[in-house]
Amino acid sequence: MHYIFEGHDTVKLAEDFGTPLYVISEERIERAVKTVKDAFLSAGLDIAVYYAGKAFTNKAMCRIVESCGIGLDTVSGGELFTALSAGFPANRIVCHGSVKTSDEIDLAVKNGVHCIVINSPAEIPVIDSAAARLGTTANVALRVSPGVDPHTHEYITTGTLDTKFGLMPEELIPAAKAVHEAKHLNFTGLHCHIGSQIMDDEPFILALSIMLGHVKELNEQGIRVGELNMGGGFGIPYLPDEKEFDMYGYAARFRRTLDRLCVEYGIPIPKIAVEPGRYIIGPAGITIYKVCAVKDIPGIRRYISVDGGLNDNPRPALYQARYNAVIAGKYGDGLPESEARISGRSCETDTLIDSIMLPDAQIGDIMVFEDTGAYCYSMAGNYNRLGIPKIVLLHADKAHVIKREQTAEDIASFDEIPDWLEG
Amino acid sequence: MHYIFEGHDTVKLAEDFGTPLYVISEERIERAVKTVKDAFLSAGLDIAVYYAGKAFTNKAMCRIVESCGIGLDTVSGGELFTALSAGFPANRIVCHGSVKTSDEIDLAVKNGVHCIVINSPAEIPVIDSAAARLGTTANVALRVSPGVDPHTHEYITTGTLDTKFGLMPEELIPAAKAVHEAKHLNFTGLHCHIGSQIMDDEPFILALSIMLGHVKELNEQGIRVGELNMGGGFGIPYLPDEKEFDMYGYAARFRRTLDRLCVEYGIPIPKIAVEPGRYIIGPAGITIYKVCAVKDIPGIRRYISVDGGLNDNPRPALYQARYNAVIAGKYGDGLPESEARISGRSCETDTLIDSIMLPDAQIGDIMVFEDTGAYCYSMAGNYNRLGIPKIVLLHADKAHVIKREQTAEDIASFDEIPDWLEG
Repeated sequence: MHYIFEGHDTVKLAEDFGTPLYVISEERIERAVKTVKDAFLSAGLDIAVYYAGKAFTNKAMCRIVESCGIGLDTVSGGELFTALSAGFPANRIVCHGSVKTSDEIDLAVKNGVHCIVINSPAEIPVIDSAAARLGTTANVALRVSPGVDPHTHEYITTGTLDTKFGLMPEELIPAAKAVHEAKHLNFTGLHCHIGSQIMDDEPFILALSIMLGHVKELNEQGIRVGELNMGGGFGIPYLPDEKEFDMYGYAARFRRTLDRLCVEYGIPIPKIAVEPGRYIIGPAGITIYKVCAVKDIPGIRRYISVDGGLNDNPRPALYQARYNAVIAGKYGDGLPESEARISGRSCETDTLIDSIMLPDAQIGDIMVFEDTGAYCYSMAGNYNRLGIPKIVLLHADKAHVIKREQTAEDIASFDEIPDWLEG
Repeated sequence: MHYIFEGHDTVKLAEDFGTPLYVISEERIERAVKTVKDAFLSAGLDIAVYYAGKAFTNKAMCRIVESCGIGLDTVSGGELFTALSAGFPANRIVCHGSVKTSDEIDLAVKNGVHCIVINSPAEIPVIDSAAARLGTTANVALRVSPGVDPHTHEYITTGTLDTKFGLMPEELIPAAKAVHEAKHLNFTGLHCHIGSQIMDDEPFILALSIMLGHVKELNEQGIRVGELNMGGGFGIPYLPDEKEFDMYGYAARFRRTLDRLCVEYGIPIPKIAVEPGRYIIGPAGITIYKVCAVKDIPGIRRYISVDGGLNDNPRPALYQARYNAVIAGKYGDGLPESEARISGRSCETDTLIDSIMLPDAQIGDIMVFEDTGAYCYSMAGNYNRLGIPKIVLLHADKAHVIKREQTAEDIASFDEIPDWLEG
């Protein structure tokens, strides 16, 4: 049998589009968005969802997010530019960043985004001046570091006190007052983000209670928090034996905590927003490779090398991330399996999967990595001057390229030779 | 004082070209190449040097390498394409890769490269057929895994037995015979590469003795090894208190071992080749950033955030690599220093330097990272849709862009919107 992804034969996708290939299912994106919205709706909360574009973005993705009726979270001028180019409505865009250049601030202010999330007090006068210069008012939220350890990889832990992200708790009231007093700023609310790939709802609930404490403090100062953005971080299962994040259970617990504390603190219930990225796009994507080398080292192990790797998926090297993979043309046939290590093609020990049971792999076999929708394309690079693969979007029985392949010519087209080195 | 890099004021470079900015010194490249060649010449060996392009390559770099009179080591079709586009002589190019696509093999064969380094027995008939089809003969070398542990980071350890790289020792003689008997292949010699960033010459000497044993075995089979390519891996100091790799001492020891074993094994001395990458380009490069945020967390630490990071230098995240940095406008003034952590701008905990003593940093200060020539630009990516910075080449008093900046428009120009998502 062949491995089928959302009705598409992955062996045929490899033939039609070549490898390596990123494949994204539009229906899976829609289903994940629906799960998040429905989970909170069943708990009686109509939340705002901002898809975190840093997980995976391009113009087509922005169109899909738009058609899902949710908002978009961007973290750089590049992401904001992409969204605006795709016609994404600016008033549904949240702009983040621990560093914001003046060009990026201008782009956000000029287009009237939903809000710019302030990461440090020094940004307040800069955004206020930009808005004044551009003859407008900028919506701003304040990001606070809630001091919660989400027990995830240190690189994607972002909400402890020891972080570049967000205001320290003691900076919040002075900053909110400064925003309140600024002539060209409109205070929209608070933001926090505790980290990424979190499977347990406990740290989120803890962060909520801390953030509601801040809402109360600001309320006491006469400053109303319209929107409380709890960030993203919902984890996904990467391996067959891992369980899913319980979104419904979380939403119910979130609602109970929200109600209880808003009553206790005597504050109005703020509009709640979340920013899922991986949760929406991770399981919506696969990567298709071709097996290019098989090396059996007696007494040690089998190496299977594919025609992609570190440059299209740096997560195993960066975070020791684990993936499941299958041989697409030998799927579910009950063939005998043996242990193998999957390597990429880069000139480096770029192990993609340390150890996996697979049927016998031959050169030319098609291999599919599951759940590669998040942080693979978005973190891709040009190591070894390898181009970033194309991306194909699946929609019902259709398959369409939404990001063309980057070629060797594309990479070299940025090169310039100064006079003195001309031949 | 300002920090001066090869006669250029780095604060002025930042003003003239913007930040983040990669800067490369042509003179430093030339001096490093000269050190390698001279060290072996003083030991009485006229070796062949192939610069390892994977450390840093583009058309201008290929021109510099060409003008230094040395060869080039490429590891992909992309690197080979760049070299050929820059007019680099094909007969001075070595082609590597644990995975080689048929297009890449064709490109190498058609252009008559110095040699294609075979990584596995399965490649032999493929390259032979390509040469037959293209009506030519392909020069090939055989890469052997010497089974040496160089005691460096596991990702850049490539010469132990447990690796995707190279033939297992027991595969060598059958493979050499197959090459010998192939109608369209010309056997040029052996290759090994034990790893990267190695500071001690012991593993290199051990690898040499193992490889000479292979030369002897092949000699006994009537197969002459013309060239013995020992790969690269020479380390460089990254921090002020680290010492340099002793190239002269290594070359002398290498020569003594070579002479002794060639006499003992009764073999002619093969032409020796090496493939330094980092050693040549690492200290020739710096990265110039602007300080964009300073956050003092009482009792914890100071965070200094710059306008680059993970996307232009993934090495701290990938390998826990350490760098030295200075504040360019406050250099050597004896100002009081305090401890800081340097972070990048990406939406991630992208610590660039965990802890460093620096004078007081203000927003707008120019910060220089030293020794970023190797594996920063070459491993760069587009995380957060940030463009890869421009590269400026310094030559005497001249400064010229050799790789233009990648803009948000450049990144989004690959995006396509399918019909059904058109607005």
